Amino acid sequence: MSMAPTHGTTPEARPAFEAVRFEDDTGELCLVDQTLLPGEVRTIRLVEAAQVREAIYELRVRGAPAIGIAAAYGAYLGARRSAARDTAGIEGDFAAACALLRAARPTAVNLGWALQRMERRFQAEKDRPQSELLAALRREADGIRAEDEEVCRRIGENGLALLGRGWGLLTHCNAGALATARYGTALAPIYLGQERGYGFRVFADETRPLLQGARLTAWELHAAGVDVTVICDNMAATVMSQHRVQAVLVGCDRVAANGDTANKIGTLGVAIIARHYGIPFYVHAPLSTIDAACPDGSAIPIEERPEAEVTERWYRQRMTPPGVRAYNPAFDVTPHGLISAIVTERGVIVPPFGEGIKATLA
Amino acid sequence: MSMAPTHGTTPEARPAFEAVRFEDDTGELCLVDQTLLPGEVRTIRLVEAAQVREAIYELRVRGAPAIGIAAAYGAYLGARRSAARDTAGIEGDFAAACALLRAARPTAVNLGWALQRMERRFQAEKDRPQSELLAALRREADGIRAEDEEVCRRIGENGLALLGRGWGLLTHCNAGALATARYGTALAPIYLGQERGYGFRVFADETRPLLQGARLTAWELHAAGVDVTVICDNMAATVMSQHRVQAVLVGCDRVAANGDTANKIGTLGVAIIARHYGIPFYVHAPLSTIDAACPDGSAIPIEERPEAEVTERWYRQRMTPPGVRAYNPAFDVTPHGLISAIVTERGVIVPPFGEGIKATLA
Repeated sequence: MSMAPTHGTTPEARPAFEAVRFEDDTGELCLVDQTLLPGEVRTIRLVEAAQVREAIYELRVRGAPAIGIAAAYGAYLGARRSAARDTAGIEGDFAAACALLRAARPTAVNLGWALQRMERRFQAEKDRPQSELLAALRREADGIRAEDEEVCRRIGENGLALLGRGWGLLTHCNAGALATARYGTALAPIYLGQERGYGFRVFADETRPLLQGARLTAWELHAAGVDVTVICDNMAATVMSQHRVQAVLVGCDRVAANGDTANKIGTLGVAIIARHYGIPFYVHAPLSTIDAACPDGSAIPIEERPEAEVTERWYRQRMTPPGVRAYNPAFDVTPHGLISAIVTERGVIVPPFGEGIKATLA
Repeated sequence: MSMAPTHGTTPEARPAFEAVRFEDDTGELCLVDQTLLPGEVRTIRLVEAAQVREAIYELRVRGAPAIGIAAAYGAYLGARRSAARDTAGIEGDFAAACALLRAARPTAVNLGWALQRMERRFQAEKDRPQSELLAALRREADGIRAEDEEVCRRIGENGLALLGRGWGLLTHCNAGALATARYGTALAPIYLGQERGYGFRVFADETRPLLQGARLTAWELHAAGVDVTVICDNMAATVMSQHRVQAVLVGCDRVAANGDTANKIGTLGVAIIARHYGIPFYVHAPLSTIDAACPDGSAIPIEERPEAEVTERWYRQRMTPPGVRAYNPAFDVTPHGLISAIVTERGVIVPPFGEGIKATLA
């Protein structure tokens, strides 16, 4: 079972790897370690919630939907690996696992959403025998994963309807198969279009500091035979000014009730530049990513990560002089006014987003 | 004679190194090799025009004014090192050196401007004895260098008048002492303000792919005691949205007659984002950088550089999968409508730029 992607030879231009999967025989959560891509395709095998928490924090698994799936299995492992003999003891270990996982990263709402589902399932099943309780938790995690695959497929269909043949598309960060159970969110319409001969030309922002665009988006799209060109983040304005981009497609980590959208740092700038050139800017959001309890973007917590990710990671040598500070917010918030449409599995939401989101969630 | 910068201990917060200088004793053009900064401060010593051409192409020396100065000395070396015994022979070698240097990089107009000054000097002096001709060429190159220092000082004064105490300033690429004879263009107001207690807080875009902001701007500003924070290029919108930036200061490689400005790739995006937030965007331009013969930005040649600068240079390992293309324009053009003012040694030009540029050059 090779994790190497196919090279456009399959009839379906769909990713041939699974970012997150649970192996029954061994009881291991298997993740493609995304910090090593594209140089090395290595699967790591995790058996404890603390390992899953580390994998999420270190971005071995990333992307809001994939984080949610990994956290769900992490919570399941917290119960499964409990040494307690009674339900109260298991519940304590399960709750500790959930607390650990929930604190791993603050911005993506899917993390908390998936853990809440697992907690509700625990409460609903906790009076049953231990083996049945564990099986129910396992089914819940499997369900989150299976639903995400179906959600991504539908987002792909809904998103593709907004695009034209031969279009140039710009995407930021990675909202692809590596970020989800399969297909991706922002990349789902691209995979579908590739199967149907749309002939898209994709520009992938490299996405500093951690290069998810250069390393991950380029890897999975190229493997599927999609025409993809990597640009530095600061070249997005140039390719838009050259009329080489007809739409911008991004994913998201959390959408507020008014449509304000947190996504990978750099998304806000892309949205402003797209607006300047009159290019539509589409956010691809599973409903699980919409946080109705969050009134607007100012209420979304933005993770700040270590300065060293900017100043030295991925480099042969330190890039900045010792003593110089770096600022490293992992996300930014794009105000709803800069967003053309939010593409969900239940349809495309257009402005005014507050009403559209309420109606879609109803 | 150490090339290491001082650490804010001198009364004048001015760079303690010279990016380009000619050493009389040895007849060598001495350059700080900027590809090695900030890890290593190494001076390279060049004696032939072909070496100068290589240093310009490889960005060991960069920044429009510094390129012009280096090219002038390169042309001088072309004549000085000629093995010819008669003026016609020397003229041939000198012309060959100029042609070689002129083709090194296409976008910065100072390269051609400085070489044209050297060629005119050659024509004016070519009937004089060989030693006098060489001395005249040497004086011309020295003059270009000395004038640049004075020009940068004046740009600093004119630019500082636009700024307020305690302001946050964002700059892109390096338009500092490393890019000029001294002080810099966009960084000249910052050095002057630092001397006068303005208390600026500077955000330096790292400036992918070659990281001139992270490596060079951070190095020289930090050495001068300036409060500088490095951000990835895609974070500029975030710090502007947080009201942490009161003005954007950039240099330029060529200004067209209508004010359209070519500068390091990424400048256009910064200008669009600054406009979105109502933040003034100032271009700092020695008059030698204004190309009155160039009607607008569409006539400015934009250099495209090797894809490997994006995909692997500065990295421990290849960042993109083999086979994935990269697009690597070295510059972009900011339309004059996005520029608040052009700061020159003869004063600040405000819109409409066509008239202002004509009046300033008159």
